Amino acid sequence: MRNLKLTVEFDGTKYAGWQYQPRHQTVQGEIESAVGKILQRKVTVYGCGRTDAGVSARGYVANVHIDSPLTVERMKLAFNHFLPEDILVTSVEETKPGFHARHSALGKTYVYRIVRRKSPLRRRHAWEFWFKLDVEKIRKAARLFEGTRDFRAFCQTRDQDGVCHIRHVRAAASDDEVLVTVEGDRFLYKMVRRIVGALVACGSDRLTQKDIRAALAGRPSPPFQTAPAQGLLLDSVEY
Amino acid sequence: MRNLKLTVEFDGTKYAGWQYQPRHQTVQGEIESAVGKILQRKVTVYGCGRTDAGVSARGYVANVHIDSPLTVERMKLAFNHFLPEDILVTSVEETKPGFHARHSALGKTYVYRIVRRKSPLRRRHAWEFWFKLDVEKIRKAARLFEGTRDFRAFCQTRDQDGVCHIRHVRAAASDDEVLVTVEGDRFLYKMVRRIVGALVACGSDRLTQKDIRAALAGRPSPPFQTAPAQGLLLDSVEY
Repeated sequence: MRNLKLTVEFDGTKYAGWQYQPRHQTVQGEIESAVGKILQRKVTVYGCGRTDAGVSARGYVANVHIDSPLTVERMKLAFNHFLPEDILVTSVEETKPGFHARHSALGKTYVYRIVRRKSPLRRRHAWEFWFKLDVEKIRKAARLFEGTRDFRAFCQTRDQDGVCHIRHVRAAASDDEVLVTVEGDRFLYKMVRRIVGALVACGSDRLTQKDIRAALAGRPSPPFQTAPAQGLLLDSVEY
Repeated sequence: MRNLKLTVEFDGTKYAGWQYQPRHQTVQGEIESAVGKILQRKVTVYGCGRTDAGVSARGYVANVHIDSPLTVERMKLAFNHFLPEDILVTSVEETKPGFHARHSALGKTYVYRIVRRKSPLRRRHAWEFWFKLDVEKIRKAARLFEGTRDFRAFCQTRDQDGVCHIRHVRAAASDDEVLVTVEGDRFLYKMVRRIVGALVACGSDRLTQKDIRAALAGRPSPPFQTAPAQGLLLDSVEY
Protein backbone atom coordinates (compact mmCIF):
# COMPACT_ATOMS: atom_id res chain seq x y z
CA MET A 1 0.00 0.00 0.00
CA ARG A 2 1.45 3.40 -0.99
CA ASN A 3 1.20 6.33 1.40
CA LEU A 4 0.79 9.65 -0.42
CA LYS A 5 1.31 13.12 1.01
CA LEU A 6 -1.00 15.71 -0.53
CA THR A 7 -0.53 19.47 -0.30
CA VAL A 8 -3.81 21.31 -0.73
CA GLU A 9 -4.78 24.94 -1.40
CA PHE A 10 -8.39 25.78 -0.68
CA ASP A 11 -10.72 28.74 -0.44
CA GLY A 12 -12.64 27.89 2.74
CA THR A 13 -15.36 30.51 2.27
CA LYS A 14 -18.20 28.09 1.66
CA TYR A 15 -16.97 25.11 3.68
CA ALA A 16 -17.79 24.07 7.24
CA GLY A 17 -14.03 23.57 7.82
CA TRP A 18 -11.75 20.63 7.01
CA GLN A 19 -13.34 17.83 8.98
CA TYR A 20 -15.94 15.53 7.42
CA GLN A 21 -19.52 16.15 8.55
CA PRO A 22 -22.43 14.16 7.16
CA ARG A 23 -24.74 17.11 6.54
CA HIS A 24 -22.28 19.88 5.61
CA GLN A 25 -19.86 20.59 2.79
CA THR A 26 -16.33 20.13 4.12
CA VAL A 27 -12.90 20.03 2.47
CA GLN A 28 -12.19 16.51 3.72
CA GLY A 29 -15.58 15.41 2.42
CA GLU A 30 -14.82 16.80 -1.05
CA ILE A 31 -11.34 15.22 -1.21
CA GLU A 32 -12.54 11.82 0.04
CA SER A 33 -15.30 11.91 -2.55
CA ALA A 34 -12.79 12.73 -5.33
CA VAL A 35 -10.37 9.97 -4.26
CA GLY A 36 -13.32 7.60 -3.90
CA LYS A 37 -14.32 8.25 -7.52
CA ILE A 38 -10.81 7.37 -8.72
CA LEU A 39 -10.43 4.21 -6.62
CA GLN A 40 -14.07 3.18 -6.79
CA ARG A 41 -14.16 2.55 -3.07
CA LYS A 42 -14.50 4.49 0.19
CA VAL A 43 -11.21 5.93 1.51
CA THR A 44 -10.12 8.01 4.49
CA VAL A 45 -7.93 11.04 3.90
CA TYR A 46 -6.00 12.06 7.04
CA GLY A 47 -5.63 15.80 7.53
CA CYS A 48 -3.01 17.73 9.51
CA GLY A 49 -5.76 19.11 11.76
CA ARG A 50 -9.19 20.68 11.87
CA THR A 51 -9.81 24.12 10.45
CA ASP A 52 -12.74 26.34 11.40
CA ALA A 53 -15.56 27.09 8.98
CA GLY A 54 -14.48 29.86 6.60
CA VAL A 55 -10.73 29.45 7.14
CA SER A 56 -8.63 29.01 3.98
CA ALA A 57 -5.30 27.30 3.34
CA ARG A 58 -2.37 27.71 1.00
CA GLY A 59 -0.43 24.63 2.11
CA TYR A 60 -2.74 22.26 4.01
CA VAL A 61 -1.27 18.75 4.22
CA ALA A 62 -3.08 15.42 4.21
CA ASN A 63 -2.12 11.80 3.55
CA VAL A 64 -3.94 8.84 2.07
CA HIS A 65 -3.16 5.14 1.69
CA ILE A 66 -3.72 4.06 -1.87
CA ASP A 67 -3.17 0.88 -3.89
CA SER A 68 -2.98 2.31 -7.39
CA PRO A 69 -0.29 2.02 -10.06
CA LEU A 70 -0.72 5.67 -11.20
CA THR A 71 2.31 7.98 -10.99
CA VAL A 72 2.09 10.88 -8.51
CA GLU A 73 1.72 13.34 -11.42
CA ARG A 74 -1.20 11.38 -12.91
CA MET A 75 -2.72 11.06 -9.45
CA LYS A 76 -2.61 14.83 -8.98
CA LEU A 77 -4.36 15.38 -12.32
CA ALA A 78 -7.00 12.79 -11.40
CA PHE A 79 -7.65 14.32 -7.95
CA ASN A 80 -8.03 17.80 -9.41
CA HIS A 81 -10.28 16.55 -12.16
CA PHE A 82 -12.84 15.50 -9.55
CA LEU A 83 -12.35 18.39 -7.12
CA PRO A 84 -14.40 21.63 -7.17
CA GLU A 85 -12.56 24.77 -8.31
CA ASP A 86 -12.09 26.12 -4.78
CA ILE A 87 -9.97 23.10 -3.73
CA LEU A 88 -6.71 22.22 -5.48
CA VAL A 89 -4.13 19.54 -4.78
CA THR A 90 -0.90 21.42 -5.50
CA SER A 91 1.42 18.45 -4.98
CA VAL A 92 1.35 14.70 -4.47
CA GLU A 93 4.46 13.01 -3.06
CA GLU A 94 5.34 9.44 -2.20
CA THR A 95 6.04 9.23 1.55
CA LYS A 96 7.08 6.70 4.21
CA PRO A 97 4.51 4.12 5.40
CA GLY A 98 4.51 5.63 8.90
CA PHE A 99 3.88 9.21 7.82
CA HIS A 100 0.69 10.73 9.26
CA ALA A 101 -0.29 14.28 8.31
CA ARG A 102 -1.32 15.15 11.88
CA HIS A 103 0.89 12.99 14.12
CA SER A 104 4.08 13.61 12.11
CA ALA A 105 3.67 17.39 11.97
CA LEU A 106 6.36 19.37 13.80
CA GLY A 107 4.66 22.71 13.44
CA LYS A 108 2.34 24.96 11.49
CA THR A 109 2.47 28.50 10.19
CA TYR A 110 -0.64 30.63 10.03
CA VAL A 111 -1.02 34.06 8.44
CA TYR A 112 -3.80 36.40 9.52
CA ARG A 113 -4.64 39.37 7.27
CA ILE A 114 -6.11 42.58 8.65
CA VAL A 115 -7.14 45.33 6.20
CA ARG A 116 -7.33 48.72 7.87
CA ARG A 117 -10.36 49.90 5.94
CA LYS A 118 -13.37 48.39 4.21
CA SER A 119 -12.28 46.75 0.97
CA PRO A 120 -14.66 45.00 -1.44
CA LEU A 121 -11.67 43.44 -3.24
CA ARG A 122 -10.09 41.91 -0.13
CA ARG A 123 -12.91 41.32 2.34
CA ARG A 124 -13.36 37.63 1.46
CA HIS A 125 -9.91 36.86 2.88
CA ALA A 126 -9.30 39.56 5.48
CA TRP A 127 -10.64 41.17 8.62
CA GLU A 128 -11.75 44.68 7.68
CA PHE A 129 -10.82 46.66 10.78
CA TRP A 130 -11.28 50.38 10.15
CA PHE A 131 -10.84 51.77 13.67
CA LYS A 132 -7.59 53.31 14.89
CA LEU A 133 -4.85 50.69 15.16
CA ASP A 134 -1.38 51.22 16.64
CA VAL A 135 0.89 48.73 14.89
CA GLU A 136 3.75 49.36 17.32
CA LYS A 137 1.52 48.22 20.20
CA ILE A 138 0.59 45.10 18.22
CA ARG A 139 4.28 44.36 17.62
CA LYS A 140 5.12 44.68 21.30
CA ALA A 141 2.14 42.56 22.42
CA ALA A 142 3.00 39.89 19.82
CA ARG A 143 6.26 39.14 21.63
CA LEU A 144 4.36 38.14 24.77
CA PHE A 145 3.01 35.06 23.01
CA GLU A 146 6.42 33.75 21.94
CA GLY A 147 7.88 30.81 23.85
CA THR A 148 6.37 27.89 25.76
CA ARG A 149 3.17 29.02 27.43
CA ASP A 150 -0.16 27.75 28.65
CA PHE A 151 -2.69 28.98 26.10
CA ARG A 152 -5.90 27.77 27.76
CA ALA A 153 -7.10 31.39 28.12
CA PHE A 154 -6.90 31.66 24.31
CA CYS A 155 -8.83 28.49 23.59
CA GLN A 156 -12.56 27.95 23.35
CA THR A 157 -12.57 24.63 25.26
CA ARG A 158 -10.59 24.91 28.49
CA ASP A 159 -10.35 21.31 29.74
CA GLN A 160 -7.22 20.09 27.98
CA ASP A 161 -3.45 20.38 27.95
CA GLY A 162 -2.84 24.03 27.07
CA VAL A 163 0.93 24.11 26.73
CA CYS A 164 2.12 25.10 23.27
CA HIS A 165 5.50 26.24 22.01
CA ILE A 166 5.04 29.29 19.79
CA ARG A 167 8.20 29.97 17.79
CA HIS A 168 7.19 33.42 16.71
CA VAL A 169 4.37 35.92 16.33
CA ARG A 170 5.23 38.74 13.93
CA ALA A 171 3.19 41.68 12.69
CA ALA A 172 4.20 43.19 9.34
CA ALA A 173 2.50 46.43 8.34
CA SER A 174 2.40 47.63 4.74
CA ASP A 175 0.23 50.32 3.23
CA ASP A 176 -3.25 49.62 4.61
CA GLU A 177 -2.67 46.03 5.75
CA VAL A 178 -1.29 44.25 8.79
CA LEU A 179 -0.20 40.62 8.36
CA VAL A 180 0.22 38.60 11.54
CA THR A 181 2.30 35.42 11.16
CA VAL A 182 2.10 32.80 13.92
CA GLU A 183 4.38 29.78 13.89
CA GLY A 184 4.19 27.06 16.53
CA ASP A 185 4.30 23.36 17.31
CA ARG A 186 0.61 22.94 18.10
CA PHE A 187 -2.50 25.07 18.31
CA LEU A 188 -5.66 24.83 20.42
CA TYR A 189 -9.20 25.38 19.14
CA LYS A 190 -9.55 28.98 17.82
CA MET A 191 -6.19 29.88 19.37
CA VAL A 192 -4.74 31.86 16.43
CA ARG A 193 -7.96 33.82 16.00
CA ARG A 194 -7.97 34.64 19.73
CA ILE A 195 -4.33 35.70 19.72
CA VAL A 196 -5.10 38.02 16.77
CA GLY A 197 -8.23 39.25 18.56
CA ALA A 198 -6.12 40.13 21.61
CA LEU A 199 -3.44 41.83 19.46
CA VAL A 200 -6.01 43.99 17.68
CA ALA A 201 -7.61 44.85 21.04
CA CYS A 202 -4.15 45.98 22.26
CA GLY A 203 -3.59 48.00 19.09
CA SER A 204 -6.91 49.78 19.55
CA ASP A 205 -6.46 50.43 23.29
CA ARG A 206 -9.17 48.10 24.52
CA LEU A 207 -6.67 45.80 26.21
CA THR A 208 -3.18 46.18 27.70
CA GLN A 209 -0.04 44.06 27.67
CA LYS A 210 -0.74 43.52 31.37
CA ASP A 211 -4.08 41.85 30.52
CA ILE A 212 -2.34 39.46 28.12
CA ARG A 213 0.40 38.68 30.64
CA ALA A 214 -2.28 37.90 33.25
CA ALA A 215 -4.15 35.57 30.89
CA LEU A 216 -0.95 33.70 29.95
CA ALA A 217 -0.14 33.30 33.65
CA GLY A 218 -3.60 31.83 34.35
CA ARG A 219 -4.77 34.89 36.27
CA PRO A 220 -8.18 36.51 35.66
CA SER A 221 -8.31 38.70 32.56
CA PRO A 222 -10.93 40.39 30.39
CA PRO A 223 -12.50 38.09 27.77
CA PHE A 224 -10.70 37.95 24.43
CA GLN A 225 -12.53 38.46 21.17
CA THR A 226 -12.07 35.92 18.40
CA ALA A 227 -10.88 37.45 15.11
CA PRO A 228 -13.21 36.53 12.19
CA ALA A 229 -12.48 33.24 10.38
CA GLN A 230 -12.13 34.66 6.87
CA GLY A 231 -8.89 36.52 7.72
CA LEU A 232 -7.07 33.31 8.66
CA LEU A 233 -4.91 31.27 6.30
CA LEU A 234 -3.07 28.04 7.12
CA ASP A 235 0.12 28.82 5.25
CA SER A 236 2.25 25.70 5.70
CA VAL A 237 2.89 22.62 7.80
CA GLU A 238 6.40 21.57 8.77
CA TYR A 239 7.55 17.91 9.07
CA MET B 1 -26.16 72.36 -7.16
CA ARG B 2 -22.96 70.68 -5.95
CA ASN B 3 -21.00 68.37 -8.22
CA LEU B 4 -19.36 65.50 -6.34
CA LYS B 5 -16.58 63.24 -7.59
CA LEU B 6 -16.83 59.70 -6.17
CA THR B 7 -14.03 57.15 -6.22
CA VAL B 8 -15.36 53.62 -6.03
CA GLU B 9 -13.83 50.21 -5.31
CA PHE B 10 -15.96 47.26 -6.33
CA ASP B 11 -15.80 43.50 -6.69
CA GLY B 12 -17.49 43.03 -10.07
CA THR B 13 -17.91 39.24 -9.76
CA LYS B 14 -21.69 39.23 -9.50
CA TYR B 15 -22.49 42.39 -11.51
CA ALA B 16 -23.42 42.77 -15.17
CA GLY B 17 -20.85 45.59 -15.41
CA TRP B 18 -21.09 49.27 -14.49
CA GLN B 19 -23.90 50.46 -16.72
CA TYR B 20 -27.50 50.49 -15.49
CA GLN B 21 -29.71 47.74 -16.92
CA PRO B 22 -33.33 47.35 -15.89
CA ARG B 23 -33.25 43.58 -15.39
CA HIS B 24 -29.69 43.01 -14.12
CA GLN B 25 -27.68 43.95 -11.05
CA THR B 26 -25.16 46.61 -12.07
CA VAL B 27 -22.79 48.84 -10.11
CA GLN B 28 -24.39 52.04 -11.42
CA GLY B 29 -27.80 50.65 -10.48
CA GLU B 30 -26.65 49.96 -6.90
CA ILE B 31 -25.05 53.40 -6.47
CA GLU B 32 -28.02 55.26 -7.96
CA SER B 33 -30.31 53.34 -5.64
CA ALA B 34 -28.14 54.24 -2.60
CA VAL B 35 -27.99 57.94 -3.55
CA GLY B 36 -31.73 57.87 -4.27
CA LYS B 37 -32.41 56.59 -0.76
CA ILE B 38 -30.43 59.49 0.75
CA LEU B 39 -31.96 62.23 -1.41
CA GLN B 40 -35.41 60.65 -1.62
CA ARG B 41 -35.53 61.20 -5.38
CA LYS B 42 -34.22 59.61 -8.57
CA VAL B 43 -30.68 60.69 -9.51
CA THR B 44 -28.22 59.89 -12.30
CA VAL B 45 -24.66 58.97 -11.40
CA TYR B 46 -22.24 59.53 -14.31
CA GLY B 47 -19.51 56.93 -14.63
CA CYS B 48 -16.09 57.20 -16.28
CA GLY B 49 -17.05 54.45 -18.72
CA ARG B 50 -18.64 51.04 -19.09
CA THR B 51 -17.04 47.97 -17.61
CA ASP B 52 -17.75 44.41 -18.75
CA ALA B 53 -19.64 41.94 -16.58
CA GLY B 54 -17.27 40.45 -13.99
CA VAL B 55 -14.63 43.20 -14.21
CA SER B 56 -13.62 44.79 -10.88
CA ALA B 57 -12.25 48.23 -9.99
CA ARG B 58 -9.98 49.71 -7.37
CA GLY B 59 -10.40 53.36 -8.40
CA TYR B 60 -13.48 53.73 -10.61
CA VAL B 61 -14.61 57.38 -10.81
CA ALA B 62 -18.14 58.75 -11.09
CA ASN B 63 -19.79 62.11 -10.49
CA VAL B 64 -23.22 63.15 -9.28
CA HIS B 65 -25.05 66.49 -8.98
CA ILE B 66 -26.52 66.83 -5.53
CA ASP B 67 -28.34 69.56 -3.58
CA SER B 68 -27.62 68.46 -0.03
CA PRO B 69 -26.01 70.32 2.87
CA LEU B 70 -24.10 67.23 4.09
CA THR B 71 -20.29 67.41 4.26
CA VAL B 72 -18.36 65.13 1.89
CA GLU B 73 -17.33 62.91 4.83
CA ARG B 74 -20.95 62.48 5.97
CA MET B 75 -21.99 61.88 2.38
CA LYS B 76 -19.42 59.08 2.06
CA LEU B 77 -20.72 57.42 5.23
CA ALA B 78 -24.30 57.73 3.98
CA PHE B 79 -23.48 56.24 0.54
CA ASN B 80 -21.65 53.30 2.08
CA HIS B 81 -24.43 52.72 4.56
CA PHE B 82 -26.82 51.95 1.69
CA LEU B 83 -24.34 50.12 -0.57
CA PRO B 84 -23.82 46.32 -0.60
CA GLU B 85 -20.50 45.09 0.82
CA ASP B 86 -18.93 44.47 -2.60
CA ILE B 87 -19.18 48.17 -3.54
CA LEU B 88 -17.44 50.89 -1.51
CA VAL B 89 -17.14 54.63 -2.08
CA THR B 90 -13.54 55.24 -0.99
CA SER B 91 -13.64 59.03 -1.41
CA VAL B 92 -16.07 61.88 -2.06
CA GLU B 93 -14.67 65.22 -3.23
CA GLU B 94 -16.22 68.54 -4.14
CA THR B 95 -15.45 69.27 -7.80
CA LYS B 96 -16.04 71.97 -10.45
CA PRO B 97 -19.55 72.32 -11.97
CA GLY B 98 -18.26 71.28 -15.40
CA PHE B 99 -16.51 68.10 -14.26
CA HIS B 100 -17.82 64.93 -15.95
CA ALA B 101 -16.36 61.54 -14.95
CA ARG B 102 -16.25 60.34 -18.56
CA HIS B 103 -15.75 63.50 -20.67
CA SER B 104 -13.13 65.02 -18.35
CA ALA B 105 -11.01 61.84 -18.12
CA LEU B 106 -7.52 62.14 -19.62
CA GLY B 107 -6.68 58.47 -19.27
CA LYS B 108 -7.19 55.20 -17.48
CA THR B 109 -4.92 52.53 -16.05
CA TYR B 110 -5.94 48.88 -16.10
CA VAL B 111 -4.16 45.98 -14.43
CA TYR B 112 -4.66 42.44 -15.69
CA ARG B 113 -3.62 39.56 -13.43
CA ILE B 114 -2.53 36.19 -14.81
CA VAL B 115 -1.77 33.36 -12.37
CA ARG B 116 0.44 30.71 -13.94
CA ARG B 117 -1.30 27.79 -12.27
CA LYS B 118 -4.71 26.93 -10.87
CA SER B 119 -5.25 28.80 -7.61
CA PRO B 120 -8.41 28.52 -5.49
CA LEU B 121 -7.32 31.56 -3.47
CA ARG B 122 -6.82 33.87 -6.47
CA ARG B 123 -9.11 32.57 -9.22
CA ARG B 124 -11.89 35.09 -8.51
CA HIS B 125 -9.63 37.93 -9.63
CA ALA B 126 -7.21 36.36 -12.07
CA TRP B 127 -6.88 34.35 -15.26
CA GLU B 128 -5.55 30.92 -14.31
CA PHE B 129 -3.27 30.12 -17.24
CA TRP B 130 -1.28 26.96 -16.50
CA PHE B 131 0.27 26.30 -19.90
CA LYS B 132 3.85 27.26 -20.77
CA LEU B 133 4.27 31.03 -20.87
CA ASP B 134 7.39 32.90 -22.01
CA VAL B 135 7.33 36.20 -20.13
CA GLU B 136 10.14 37.67 -22.27
CA LYS B 137 7.99 37.17 -25.39
CA ILE B 138 5.09 38.89 -23.63
CA ARG B 139 7.35 41.83 -22.70
CA LYS B 140 8.54 42.23 -26.28
CA ALA B 141 5.04 41.96 -27.75
CA ALA B 142 3.72 44.47 -25.18
CA ARG B 143 5.87 47.21 -26.69
CA LEU B 144 4.09 46.84 -30.05
CA PHE B 145 0.92 48.28 -28.53
CA GLU B 146 2.55 51.44 -27.19
CA GLY B 147 1.95 54.70 -29.07
CA THR B 148 -0.89 56.01 -31.20
CA ARG B 149 -2.44 53.14 -33.12
CA ASP B 150 -5.68 52.00 -34.70
CA PHE B 151 -7.03 49.35 -32.36
CA ARG B 152 -10.09 48.27 -34.35
CA ALA B 153 -8.64 44.75 -34.68
CA PHE B 154 -8.67 44.56 -30.87
CA CYS B 155 -12.25 45.71 -30.44
CA GLN B 156 -15.44 43.71 -30.57
CA THR B 157 -17.42 46.31 -32.59
CA ARG B 158 -15.41 47.48 -35.59
CA ASP B 159 -17.44 50.40 -36.95
CA GLN B 160 -16.02 53.28 -34.93
CA ASP B 161 -12.98 55.49 -34.55
CA GLY B 162 -10.25 53.07 -33.50
CA VAL B 163 -7.36 55.45 -32.81
CA CYS B 164 -6.15 55.32 -29.21
CA HIS B 165 -2.98 56.60 -27.61
CA ILE B 166 -1.57 53.89 -25.34
CA ARG B 167 1.09 55.33 -23.03
CA HIS B 168 2.44 52.02 -21.92
CA VAL B 169 1.87 48.29 -21.71
CA ARG B 170 4.10 46.62 -19.15
CA ALA B 171 4.32 43.01 -17.99
CA ALA B 172 5.75 42.40 -14.52
CA ALA B 173 6.45 38.79 -13.56
CA SER B 174 6.83 37.69 -9.96
CA ASP B 175 6.77 34.20 -8.53
CA ASP B 176 3.80 32.53 -10.27
CA GLU B 177 2.03 35.69 -11.48
CA VAL B 178 2.22 38.04 -14.44
CA LEU B 179 0.67 41.49 -14.04
CA VAL B 180 -0.01 43.41 -17.25
CA THR B 181 -0.52 47.17 -16.79
CA VAL B 182 -2.09 49.14 -19.64
CA GLU B 183 -2.30 52.92 -19.51
CA GLY B 184 -3.95 54.95 -22.26
CA ASP B 185 -6.17 57.89 -23.15
CA ARG B 186 -9.16 55.86 -24.30
CA PHE B 187 -10.15 52.22 -24.73
CA LEU B 188 -12.50 50.44 -27.13
CA TYR B 189 -14.95 47.70 -26.16
CA LYS B 190 -13.03 44.69 -24.76
CA MET B 191 -9.73 46.21 -25.95
CA VAL B 192 -7.65 45.53 -22.81
CA ARG B 193 -8.88 41.95 -22.61
CA ARG B 194 -8.00 41.43 -26.30
CA ILE B 195 -4.55 42.96 -25.90
CA VAL B 196 -3.92 40.60 -22.96
CA GLY B 197 -5.35 37.70 -24.98
CA ALA B 198 -2.87 38.49 -27.80
CA LEU B 199 0.04 38.84 -25.35
CA VAL B 200 -0.69 35.47 -23.74
CA ALA B 201 -1.02 33.90 -27.20
CA CYS B 202 2.45 35.31 -28.04
CA GLY B 203 3.86 34.03 -24.75
CA SER B 204 2.54 30.54 -25.47
CA ASP B 205 3.65 30.46 -29.13
CA ARG B 206 0.22 30.52 -30.68
CA LEU B 207 0.78 33.96 -32.21
CA THR B 208 3.83 35.94 -33.36
CA GLN B 209 4.85 39.58 -33.11
CA LYS B 210 4.30 39.68 -36.87
CA ASP B 211 0.62 38.78 -36.42
CA ILE B 212 0.18 41.63 -33.94
CA ARG B 213 1.97 44.09 -36.22
CA ALA B 214 -0.30 43.04 -39.10
CA ALA B 215 -3.44 43.54 -37.01
CA LEU B 216 -2.31 46.98 -35.84
CA ALA B 217 -1.60 47.95 -39.47
CA GLY B 218 -5.09 46.86 -40.54
CA ARG B 219 -3.83 43.84 -42.47
CA PRO B 220 -5.45 40.39 -42.11
CA SER B 221 -4.43 38.52 -38.96
CA PRO B 222 -5.53 35.47 -36.97
CA PRO B 223 -8.46 36.13 -34.60
CA PHE B 224 -7.50 37.29 -31.11
CA GLN B 225 -8.87 35.62 -28.03
CA THR B 226 -10.41 37.76 -25.30
CA ALA B 227 -8.85 37.26 -21.87
CA PRO B 228 -11.48 36.37 -19.22
CA ALA B 229 -13.21 39.28 -17.46
CA GLN B 230 -12.36 38.32 -13.88
CA GLY B 231 -8.63 39.00 -14.36
CA LEU B 232 -9.23 42.67 -15.25
CA LEU B 233 -9.13 45.53 -12.76
CA LEU B 234 -9.72 49.21 -13.52
CA ASP B 235 -6.98 50.60 -11.33
CA SER B 236 -7.34 54.37 -11.69
CA VAL B 237 -8.64 57.22 -13.86
CA GLU B 238 -6.55 60.32 -14.53
CA TYR B 239 -8.00 63.85 -14.87
